[in-house]
Amino acid sequence: MTTPALIAIDWGTTRFRAYLLDSAGAVLERVSSEDGIMAVKPGGFPAVLVIRCGMWLARHPDLPVIMAGMVGSRNGWVEAPYRVCPATASDIAEAMAEVDIGNGRKARIVPGLSTRDAAGAPDVMRGEETLALGTGIQNGTVILPGTHSKWVQIENGQIKSFATFMTGEFYATLLSQTILGKLREEPDDATGFTKGVEAAKRKGGLTHLAFAARTSVLLGDISGHEVAPFLSGLLIGAEVDAGLEMGPSGGDIVLIADGIIVDSYTQALAARGRTCHTIATESCFTAGLARLLMA
Amino acid sequence: MTTPALIAIDWGTTRFRAYLLDSAGAVLERVSSEDGIMAVKPGGFPAVLVIRCGMWLARHPDLPVIMAGMVGSRNGWVEAPYRVCPATASDIAEAMAEVDIGNGRKARIVPGLSTRDAAGAPDVMRGEETLALGTGIQNGTVILPGTHSKWVQIENGQIKSFATFMTGEFYATLLSQTILGKLREEPDDATGFTKGVEAAKRKGGLTHLAFAARTSVLLGDISGHEVAPFLSGLLIGAEVDAGLEMGPSGGDIVLIADGIIVDSYTQALAARGRTCHTIATESCFTAGLARLLMA
Repeated sequence: MTTPALIAIDWGTTRFRAYLLDSAGAVLERVSSEDGIMAVKPGGFPAVLVIRCGMWLARHPDLPVIMAGMVGSRNGWVEAPYRVCPATASDIAEAMAEVDIGNGRKARIVPGLSTRDAAGAPDVMRGEETLALGTGIQNGTVILPGTHSKWVQIENGQIKSFATFMTGEFYATLLSQTILGKLREEPDDATGFTKGVEAAKRKGGLTHLAFAARTSVLLGDISGHEVAPFLSGLLIGAEVDAGLEMGPSGGDIVLIADGIIVDSYTQALAARGRTCHTIATESCFTAGLARLLMA
Repeated sequence: MTTPALIAIDWGTTRFRAYLLDSAGAVLERVSSEDGIMAVKPGGFPAVLVIRCGMWLARHPDLPVIMAGMVGSRNGWVEAPYRVCPATASDIAEAMAEVDIGNGRKARIVPGLSTRDAAGAPDVMRGEETLALGTGIQNGTVILPGTHSKWVQIENGQIKSFATFMTGEFYATLLSQTILGKLREEPDDATGFTKGVEAAKRKGGLTHLAFAARTSVLLGDISGHEVAPFLSGLLIGAEVDAGLEMGPSGGDIVLIADGIIVDSYTQALAARGRTCHTIATESCFTAGLARLLMA
């Protein structure tokens, strides 16, 4: 049996996931629960850790414990201040915060990263730095789709910069809270997605282009069943266009994602003549933490 | 006393406004109520008209009655189908729908307009065509800010094309329903507006740029009091940039607006080196309907 080398914890807003890893980052055991940081009462973090991982901690008293994600935010266990980009794996490992987990034992928390683009615009991420490092790529772009999608630029193995796109949150909010959802009919018809990706090339910006999710139905260009996929295609298409424009023109494109969203991004990238390869989120997380342990 | 020449009705989603006008479009009398089309039961439109304007109708049995706005939509009194752009005042007047208002008397309803941009993207408006005609300009751009802002291009006195920007609806929804409002503090600090207008020039599109309403607070660029004005400035700045890019490079810019929004648009236009002059909504409406009566 392989020797455990690390207790790795992905502690986000809504989920708690812990892994017992060997030195190569392979998963020996895993636990997961709904104890995201929003569900933890002030001061309750040590107790949750013991409830979920107490057996591992007792069995392996000398094993390092590293946590990443929103557990290091202002509303988490302790705030691990944002490390400024560019940042190597070593830079990030050195900036880890420490917390006491009982019996004189310490755990470390991976800091988030901050960046500024050429115009001085700020951006932040927390958790995605670990996933991006876990891809192992030396040069290229890592895309992490989601509520707040991240496009991370990797140069010579370090995280050079990144950008956030509120694609998932805009989609959910615009569809449910604005006039754009009024003409939607279910079930969804996926042909709308292709039309939306194409529509993202038009001029006028999102507040203009999104209105076509309504007017295209009124004028017969799309059906009510295409409304939601059209809006999704428009938002993802706009994200892909802006992300490609902001990043390097070449290099690998790696997508860290699971499930249906993989197809959406693969299709939107293909519509712009680009290919990507996909790695599952858990693989990137465990590889990323194993890399930080060695850095 | 001037002779009445027209009963002009601005019947929108939430408001009913009626004017007794002379032949020059001057207001002799006015009434207004909350009987917007959403508050009118099916079949209830003739009764509302009589309740609000019965005295005028009785006093002036031969006066023309023209209505504009959402009263001509699918959910209104009768659907007055969209007239395709470009459209002169005569084109619009000829496309008016007729409804029976009792005693063999007819009222006319101004149709909305539809358009397609160079890429084929559709757009529609209803009510704003009357306001735009009421400016009386021969060449230039008419801006109608609001929930769904319209930028209307006028060429040789006709409505050539237009574009919608969901600026007001995006602002209200993003601020109240997404993470962007979480760091907002009140009262608002207007310096945020200037920063937002400036931020609209950055690259990345709205789903990226809007996230700065959060990250700029986290990294100390703006205060919580600047969050809402920053988002407003960003959205209006993006609208102004796109609207100016889509329209002619020269010509008049006329703003049809009342109240605080006048300052916001005037400031955003000035930040792009453009000036505008403002006309109040009521003046444009009455002048527009008087023009349609004569067309």
